[in-house]
Amino acid sequence: MTGVTPEDARIAALAAGHFHEHGITATGVDALSRAAGISKRTLYQRFGSKDGLIAAAYESLDLPVFQMFTQAVEAQTDDPRAQLEAFFAQLEPLIRSPGFRGCPFTNASAELADPLHPAHAVVRRHKERIRRWLLSRARAAGASNPEQLSRQLMLVFAGVQSQALLERSARPARDACDLVRALIDAAITPGR
Amino acid sequence: MTGVTPEDARIAALAAGHFHEHGITATGVDALSRAAGISKRTLYQRFGSKDGLIAAAYESLDLPVFQMFTQAVEAQTDDPRAQLEAFFAQLEPLIRSPGFRGCPFTNASAELADPLHPAHAVVRRHKERIRRWLLSRARAAGASNPEQLSRQLMLVFAGVQSQALLERSARPARDACDLVRALIDAAITPGR
Repeated sequence: MTGVTPEDARIAALAAGHFHEHGITATGVDALSRAAGISKRTLYQRFGSKDGLIAAAYESLDLPVFQMFTQAVEAQTDDPRAQLEAFFAQLEPLIRSPGFRGCPFTNASAELADPLHPAHAVVRRHKERIRRWLLSRARAAGASNPEQLSRQLMLVFAGVQSQALLERSARPARDACDLVRALIDAAITPGR
Repeated sequence: MTGVTPEDARIAALAAGHFHEHGITATGVDALSRAAGISKRTLYQRFGSKDGLIAAAYESLDLPVFQMFTQAVEAQTDDPRAQLEAFFAQLEPLIRSPGFRGCPFTNASAELADPLHPAHAVVRRHKERIRRWLLSRARAAGASNPEQLSRQLMLVFAGVQSQALLERSARPARDACDLVRALIDAAITPGR
Protein backbone atom coordinates (compact mmCIF):
# COMPACT_ATOMS: atom_id res chain seq x y z
CA MET A 1 0.00 0.00 0.00
CA THR A 2 1.26 3.48 -0.84
CA GLY A 3 0.07 6.65 0.87
CA VAL A 4 -1.50 4.65 3.69
CA THR A 5 -1.51 6.40 7.07
CA PRO A 6 -0.65 4.39 10.20
CA GLU A 7 -4.29 4.80 11.28
CA ASP A 8 -5.54 3.37 7.94
CA ALA A 9 -3.11 0.48 8.34
CA ARG A 10 -4.30 -0.20 11.89
CA ILE A 11 -7.96 -0.30 10.84
CA ALA A 12 -7.26 -2.41 7.72
CA ALA A 13 -5.33 -4.98 9.74
CA LEU A 14 -8.09 -5.12 12.36
CA ALA A 15 -10.68 -5.60 9.61
CA ALA A 16 -8.58 -8.35 7.98
CA GLY A 17 -8.57 -10.26 11.26
CA HIS A 18 -12.35 -9.99 11.64
CA PHE A 19 -13.01 -10.93 7.98
CA HIS A 20 -10.79 -13.97 8.23
CA GLU A 21 -12.11 -15.12 11.60
CA HIS A 22 -15.83 -14.55 11.05
CA GLY A 23 -16.32 -14.22 7.28
CA ILE A 24 -16.42 -11.05 5.19
CA THR A 25 -20.17 -10.64 4.73
CA ALA A 26 -20.80 -11.76 8.31
CA THR A 27 -18.63 -8.89 9.61
CA GLY A 28 -20.67 -5.70 9.81
CA VAL A 29 -19.28 -2.20 9.49
CA ASP A 30 -20.94 -1.35 12.82
CA ALA A 31 -18.99 -4.03 14.68
CA LEU A 32 -15.78 -3.08 12.90
CA SER A 33 -16.01 0.62 13.70
CA ARG A 34 -16.82 -0.22 17.32
CA ALA A 35 -13.81 -2.55 17.50
CA ALA A 36 -11.60 0.12 15.91
CA GLY A 37 -12.88 2.80 18.30
CA ILE A 38 -13.95 5.10 15.48
CA SER A 39 -17.30 6.22 14.08
CA LYS A 40 -18.87 4.54 11.05
CA ARG A 41 -18.66 7.92 9.31
CA THR A 42 -14.88 8.05 9.84
CA LEU A 43 -14.55 4.49 8.53
CA TYR A 44 -16.39 5.41 5.32
CA GLN A 45 -14.37 8.63 4.99
CA ARG A 46 -11.13 6.63 5.17
CA PHE A 47 -12.06 3.70 2.88
CA GLY A 48 -14.95 5.01 0.77
CA SER A 49 -17.13 1.92 1.25
CA LYS A 50 -17.15 -1.51 2.87
CA ASP A 51 -15.77 -2.88 -0.42
CA GLY A 52 -12.90 -0.38 -0.25
CA LEU A 53 -12.20 -1.51 3.31
CA ILE A 54 -12.26 -5.18 2.24
CA ALA A 55 -9.69 -4.52 -0.51
CA ALA A 56 -7.51 -2.52 1.93
CA ALA A 57 -7.78 -5.30 4.52
CA TYR A 58 -6.44 -7.98 2.16
CA GLU A 59 -3.83 -5.55 0.84
CA SER A 60 -2.62 -5.18 4.44
CA LEU A 61 -2.24 -8.97 4.72
CA ASP A 62 -0.33 -9.41 1.45
CA LEU A 63 3.27 -8.74 2.48
CA PRO A 64 3.04 -10.04 6.08
CA VAL A 65 1.62 -13.38 4.87
CA PHE A 66 4.19 -13.61 2.05
CA GLN A 67 6.99 -12.94 4.53
CA MET A 68 5.58 -15.40 7.05
CA PHE A 69 5.75 -18.12 4.37
CA THR A 70 9.17 -17.27 2.92
CA GLN A 71 11.46 -15.66 5.50
CA ALA A 72 11.80 -18.60 7.89
CA VAL A 73 12.37 -20.91 4.91
CA GLU A 74 15.10 -18.66 3.52
CA ALA A 75 16.77 -18.47 6.93
CA GLN A 76 16.69 -22.26 7.19
CA THR A 77 18.50 -23.22 3.97
CA ASP A 78 20.04 -21.78 0.79
CA ASP A 79 19.36 -24.87 -1.31
CA PRO A 80 16.47 -24.11 -3.70
CA ARG A 81 15.04 -27.62 -3.66
CA ALA A 82 15.19 -27.76 0.14
CA GLN A 83 13.47 -24.36 0.24
CA LEU A 84 10.59 -25.69 -1.85
CA GLU A 85 10.19 -28.65 0.48
CA ALA A 86 10.51 -26.46 3.60
CA PHE A 87 7.84 -24.11 2.24
CA PHE A 88 5.33 -26.97 2.34
CA ALA A 89 6.71 -28.52 5.54
CA GLN A 90 5.72 -25.39 7.49
CA LEU A 91 2.04 -25.92 6.66
CA GLU A 92 1.49 -28.72 9.19
CA PRO A 93 2.21 -26.58 12.30
CA LEU A 94 0.18 -23.74 10.77
CA ILE A 95 -2.79 -26.05 10.20
CA ARG A 96 -2.47 -27.40 13.74
CA SER A 97 -2.58 -23.90 15.27
CA PRO A 98 -5.90 -23.22 17.03
CA GLY A 99 -6.95 -20.26 14.87
CA PHE A 100 -6.43 -22.01 11.52
CA ARG A 101 -9.21 -21.01 9.11
CA GLY A 102 -7.66 -21.85 5.72
CA CYS A 103 -5.97 -19.36 3.40
CA PRO A 104 -7.54 -15.91 3.89
CA PHE A 105 -6.96 -15.04 0.23
CA THR A 106 -8.52 -18.23 -1.16
CA ASN A 107 -11.44 -17.80 1.23
CA ALA A 108 -11.99 -14.20 0.13
CA SER A 109 -11.88 -15.28 -3.52
CA ALA A 110 -14.57 -17.88 -2.79
CA GLU A 111 -16.82 -15.65 -0.69
CA LEU A 112 -16.82 -12.49 -2.82
CA ALA A 113 -19.19 -13.60 -5.58
CA ASP A 114 -18.93 -10.42 -7.65
CA PRO A 115 -16.00 -11.01 -10.04
CA LEU A 116 -15.48 -7.23 -10.24
CA HIS A 117 -14.99 -6.80 -6.49
CA PRO A 118 -11.76 -4.82 -5.98
CA ALA A 119 -10.38 -7.41 -3.53
CA HIS A 120 -10.00 -10.02 -6.30
CA ALA A 121 -7.08 -8.13 -7.85
CA VAL A 122 -5.41 -7.98 -4.41
CA VAL A 123 -5.86 -11.74 -3.98
CA ARG A 124 -4.41 -12.46 -7.43
CA ARG A 125 -1.42 -10.20 -6.74
CA HIS A 126 -0.68 -11.99 -3.48
CA LYS A 127 -0.88 -15.46 -5.02
CA GLU A 128 1.28 -14.36 -7.95
CA ARG A 129 3.88 -13.07 -5.46
CA ILE A 130 4.04 -16.49 -3.84
CA ARG A 131 4.12 -18.24 -7.24
CA ARG A 132 7.11 -16.12 -8.33
CA TRP A 133 8.98 -17.09 -5.17
CA LEU A 134 8.31 -20.78 -5.91
CA LEU A 135 9.24 -20.20 -9.58
CA SER A 136 12.64 -18.75 -8.75
CA ARG A 137 13.41 -21.80 -6.55
CA ALA A 138 12.10 -24.24 -9.19
CA ARG A 139 14.35 -22.59 -11.77
CA ALA A 140 17.41 -22.60 -9.49
CA ALA A 141 16.77 -26.25 -8.61
CA GLY A 142 16.98 -27.13 -12.31
CA ALA A 143 13.36 -28.03 -13.04
CA SER A 144 12.85 -28.85 -16.72
CA ASN A 145 9.68 -26.70 -16.79
CA PRO A 146 9.88 -24.34 -13.79
CA GLU A 147 6.80 -22.31 -14.84
CA GLN A 148 4.66 -25.44 -14.86
CA LEU A 149 6.14 -26.71 -11.60
CA SER A 150 5.42 -23.37 -9.89
CA ARG A 151 1.79 -23.46 -11.06
CA GLN A 152 1.36 -27.07 -9.91
CA LEU A 153 2.83 -26.20 -6.52
CA MET A 154 0.24 -23.39 -6.27
CA LEU A 155 -2.52 -25.97 -6.84
CA VAL A 156 -1.15 -28.05 -4.00
CA PHE A 157 -0.75 -24.96 -1.80
CA ALA A 158 -4.42 -23.97 -2.30
CA GLY A 159 -5.66 -27.56 -2.07
CA VAL A 160 -3.91 -28.47 1.15
CA GLN A 161 -5.28 -25.48 3.04
CA SER A 162 -8.86 -26.03 1.79
CA GLN A 163 -8.78 -29.73 2.44
CA ALA A 164 -7.24 -29.36 5.93
CA LEU A 165 -9.91 -26.83 6.90
CA LEU A 166 -12.69 -29.03 5.56
CA GLU A 167 -11.41 -32.22 7.21
CA ARG A 168 -10.26 -30.43 10.40
CA SER A 169 -7.12 -32.51 10.08
CA ALA A 170 -3.40 -31.97 9.52
CA ARG A 171 -3.08 -35.11 7.41
CA PRO A 172 -3.49 -33.20 4.13
CA ALA A 173 -0.29 -31.31 5.09
CA ARG A 174 1.69 -34.55 5.28
CA ASP A 175 0.15 -35.82 2.04
CA ALA A 176 1.08 -32.52 0.40
CA CYS A 177 4.73 -32.86 1.47
CA ASP A 178 4.96 -36.33 -0.09
CA LEU A 179 3.18 -35.10 -3.19
CA VAL A 180 5.51 -32.10 -3.52
CA ARG A 181 8.60 -34.30 -3.23
CA ALA A 182 7.26 -36.60 -5.99
CA LEU A 183 6.44 -33.59 -8.16
CA ILE A 184 9.90 -32.05 -7.72
CA ASP A 185 11.54 -35.43 -8.43
CA ALA A 186 9.53 -35.77 -11.65
CA ALA A 187 10.31 -32.17 -12.66
CA ILE A 188 14.03 -32.30 -11.97
CA THR A 189 15.15 -35.84 -12.88
CA PRO A 190 14.28 -36.10 -16.59
CA GLY A 191 17.07 -35.16 -18.98
CA ARG A 192 19.65 -34.59 -16.22
CA MET B 1 -31.87 -36.96 2.55
CA THR B 2 -34.48 -39.20 4.10
CA GLY B 3 -38.00 -38.08 4.87
CA VAL B 4 -37.65 -35.04 2.63
CA THR B 5 -40.83 -33.91 0.91
CA PRO B 6 -40.69 -32.82 -2.75
CA GLU B 7 -41.46 -29.27 -1.56
CA ASP B 8 -38.53 -29.38 0.93
CA ALA B 9 -36.29 -30.65 -1.88
CA ARG B 10 -37.43 -27.88 -4.23
CA ILE B 11 -36.70 -25.16 -1.67
CA ALA B 12 -33.34 -26.68 -0.65
CA ALA B 13 -32.19 -26.89 -4.28
CA LEU B 14 -33.27 -23.30 -4.90
CA ALA B 15 -31.39 -22.16 -1.78
CA ALA B 16 -28.29 -24.11 -2.85
CA GLY B 17 -28.26 -22.23 -6.15
CA HIS B 18 -28.54 -18.85 -4.41
CA PHE B 19 -25.90 -19.69 -1.79
CA HIS B 20 -23.45 -20.82 -4.46
CA GLU B 21 -24.10 -17.91 -6.80
CA HIS B 22 -24.19 -15.07 -4.29
CA GLY B 23 -22.58 -16.40 -1.10
CA ILE B 24 -24.28 -17.95 1.92
CA THR B 25 -24.29 -15.00 4.31
CA ALA B 26 -25.08 -12.60 1.46
CA THR B 27 -28.28 -14.54 0.71
CA GLY B 28 -31.07 -13.41 3.02
CA VAL B 29 -34.00 -15.52 4.12
CA ASP B 30 -36.34 -12.78 2.85
CA ALA B 31 -35.00 -13.04 -0.70
CA LEU B 32 -35.04 -16.83 -0.55
CA SER B 33 -38.64 -17.12 0.62
CA ARG B 34 -39.72 -14.59 -2.04
CA ALA B 35 -37.86 -16.61 -4.73
CA ALA B 36 -39.47 -19.84 -3.46
CA GLY B 37 -42.94 -18.25 -3.39
CA ILE B 38 -43.49 -19.10 0.28
CA SER B 39 -43.64 -17.08 3.49
CA LYS B 40 -40.64 -16.68 5.77
CA ARG B 41 -42.70 -18.39 8.46
CA THR B 42 -43.22 -21.47 6.25
CA LEU B 43 -39.48 -21.53 5.46
CA TYR B 44 -38.62 -21.59 9.17
CA GLN B 45 -41.31 -24.20 9.85
CA ARG B 46 -39.78 -26.47 7.23
CA PHE B 47 -36.07 -26.05 8.07
CA GLY B 48 -36.03 -24.78 11.67
CA SER B 49 -33.53 -21.98 11.02
CA LYS B 50 -31.37 -20.47 8.30
CA ASP B 51 -28.60 -22.84 9.42
CA GLY B 52 -30.94 -25.81 8.98
CA LEU B 53 -31.76 -24.58 5.49
CA ILE B 54 -28.05 -24.19 4.69
CA ALA B 55 -27.34 -27.79 5.73
CA ALA B 56 -30.36 -29.04 3.72
CA ALA B 57 -29.23 -27.02 0.70
CA TYR B 58 -25.77 -28.64 0.60
CA GLU B 59 -27.31 -32.04 1.34
CA SER B 60 -29.46 -31.57 -1.76
CA LEU B 61 -26.33 -30.92 -3.86
CA ASP B 62 -24.39 -33.93 -2.56
CA LEU B 63 -25.61 -36.75 -4.83
CA PRO B 64 -26.27 -34.65 -7.96
CA VAL B 65 -22.73 -33.21 -7.85
CA PHE B 66 -21.20 -36.63 -7.13
CA GLN B 67 -23.13 -38.10 -10.08
CA MET B 68 -22.18 -35.19 -12.35
CA PHE B 69 -18.51 -35.94 -11.66
CA THR B 70 -18.63 -39.74 -11.90
CA GLN B 71 -21.40 -40.93 -14.25
CA ALA B 72 -20.05 -39.50 -17.51
CA VAL B 73 -16.59 -40.80 -16.61
CA GLU B 74 -17.93 -44.30 -15.94
CA ALA B 75 -19.85 -44.25 -19.22
CA GLN B 76 -16.69 -43.23 -21.06
CA THR B 77 -14.31 -46.01 -20.00
CA ASP B 78 -14.03 -49.08 -17.76
CA ASP B 79 -10.28 -48.73 -17.25
CA PRO B 80 -9.66 -47.47 -13.69
CA ARG B 81 -6.57 -45.43 -14.58
CA ALA B 82 -8.36 -43.85 -17.55
CA GLN B 83 -11.30 -43.07 -15.23
CA LEU B 84 -9.00 -41.21 -12.83
CA GLU B 85 -7.58 -39.15 -15.69
CA ALA B 86 -11.04 -38.53 -17.19
CA PHE B 87 -12.32 -37.36 -13.79
CA PHE B 88 -9.80 -34.50 -13.90
CA ALA B 89 -10.11 -33.91 -17.67
CA GLN B 90 -13.75 -32.89 -17.22
CA LEU B 91 -12.75 -29.95 -15.00
CA GLU B 92 -11.57 -27.72 -17.85
CA PRO B 93 -15.01 -27.44 -19.58
CA LEU B 94 -16.63 -27.00 -16.16
CA ILE B 95 -14.24 -24.16 -15.29
CA ARG B 96 -14.84 -22.55 -18.69
CA SER B 97 -18.63 -22.56 -18.20
CA PRO B 98 -20.00 -19.04 -17.53
CA GLY B 99 -21.44 -19.75 -14.07
CA PHE B 100 -18.27 -21.33 -12.64
CA ARG B 101 -17.85 -20.23 -9.01
CA GLY B 102 -15.48 -22.90 -7.65
CA CYS B 103 -16.54 -25.94 -5.65
CA PRO B 104 -19.74 -25.15 -3.69
CA PHE B 105 -18.68 -27.48 -0.88
CA THR B 106 -15.18 -26.04 -0.50
CA ASN B 107 -16.64 -22.52 -0.63
CA ALA B 108 -19.18 -23.34 2.08
CA SER B 109 -16.44 -24.83 4.25
CA ALA B 110 -14.47 -21.58 3.89
CA GLU B 111 -17.36 -19.20 4.45
CA LEU B 112 -19.04 -20.87 7.45
CA ALA B 113 -16.62 -19.78 10.16
CA ASP B 114 -18.34 -21.66 13.00
CA PRO B 115 -16.75 -25.12 13.06
CA LEU B 116 -19.94 -26.50 14.63
CA HIS B 117 -22.20 -25.34 11.80
CA PRO B 118 -24.29 -28.37 10.70
CA ALA B 119 -23.30 -27.89 7.02
CA HIS B 120 -19.68 -28.88 7.73
CA ALA B 121 -20.64 -32.53 8.27
CA VAL B 122 -22.55 -32.46 4.96
CA VAL B 123 -19.49 -31.04 3.18
CA ARG B 124 -17.20 -33.68 4.69
CA ARG B 125 -19.60 -36.48 3.71
CA HIS B 126 -19.69 -35.24 0.11
CA LYS B 127 -15.91 -34.98 -0.19
CA GLU B 128 -15.48 -38.41 1.39
CA ARG B 129 -17.93 -39.85 -1.15
CA ILE B 130 -15.76 -38.50 -3.98
CA ARG B 131 -12.56 -39.67 -2.29
CA ARG B 132 -13.95 -43.23 -2.02
CA TRP B 133 -14.75 -43.22 -5.73
CA LEU B 134 -11.16 -42.15 -6.48
CA LEU B 135 -9.86 -44.72 -3.97
CA SER B 136 -11.65 -47.64 -5.63
CA ARG B 137 -10.13 -46.63 -9.01
CA ALA B 138 -6.67 -46.11 -7.49
CA ARG B 139 -6.88 -49.59 -5.96
CA ALA B 140 -8.12 -51.22 -9.18
CA ALA B 141 -5.37 -49.45 -11.15
CA GLY B 142 -2.78 -51.09 -8.90
CA ALA B 143 -1.52 -48.08 -6.95
CA SER B 144 1.05 -49.10 -4.34
CA ASN B 145 -0.67 -46.87 -1.74
CA PRO B 146 -4.21 -46.23 -3.00
CA GLU B 147 -5.33 -44.48 0.22
CA GLN B 148 -2.54 -41.94 -0.10
CA LEU B 149 -3.12 -41.48 -3.83
CA SER B 150 -6.84 -40.85 -3.24
CA ARG B 151 -6.03 -38.20 -0.61
CA GLN B 152 -3.48 -36.52 -2.86
CA LEU B 153 -5.98 -36.47 -5.72
CA MET B 154 -8.44 -34.74 -3.36
CA LEU B 155 -5.83 -32.02 -2.71
CA VAL B 156 -5.49 -31.48 -6.45
CA PHE B 157 -9.28 -31.53 -6.89
CA ALA B 158 -9.76 -28.81 -4.26
CA GLY B 159 -6.71 -26.82 -5.40
CA VAL B 160 -7.58 -26.70 -9.09
CA GLN B 161 -11.08 -25.35 -8.47
CA SER B 162 -9.86 -22.68 -6.01
CA GLN B 163 -6.98 -21.62 -8.19
CA ALA B 164 -9.10 -21.49 -11.38
CA LEU B 165 -11.68 -19.31 -9.63
CA LEU B 166 -9.02 -17.01 -8.24
CA GLU B 167 -7.12 -16.67 -11.53
CA ARG B 168 -10.30 -16.64 -13.66
CA SER B 169 -8.44 -19.04 -15.93
CA ALA B 170 -8.74 -22.63 -17.12
CA ARG B 171 -4.98 -23.14 -17.12
CA PRO B 172 -5.00 -24.69 -13.61
CA ALA B 173 -7.22 -27.45 -15.08
CA ARG B 174 -4.57 -28.35 -17.67
CA ASP B 175 -1.81 -28.18 -15.04
CA ALA B 176 -3.89 -30.46 -12.82
CA CYS B 177 -4.24 -33.07 -15.59
CA ASP B 178 -0.46 -33.18 -16.10
CA LEU B 179 0.07 -33.31 -12.35
CA VAL B 180 -2.44 -36.14 -11.92
CA ARG B 181 -0.78 -38.18 -14.67
CA ALA B 182 2.62 -37.76 -12.99
CA LEU B 183 1.11 -38.68 -9.60
CA ILE B 184 -0.54 -41.82 -10.97
CA ASP B 185 2.68 -42.81 -12.76
CA ALA B 186 4.63 -42.44 -9.53
CA ALA B 187 1.99 -44.38 -7.56
CA ILE B 188 1.64 -47.25 -9.98
CA THR B 189 5.12 -47.83 -11.46
CA PRO B 190 7.23 -48.71 -8.37
CA GLY B 191 7.50 -52.39 -7.63
CA ARG B 192 5.62 -53.52 -10.71
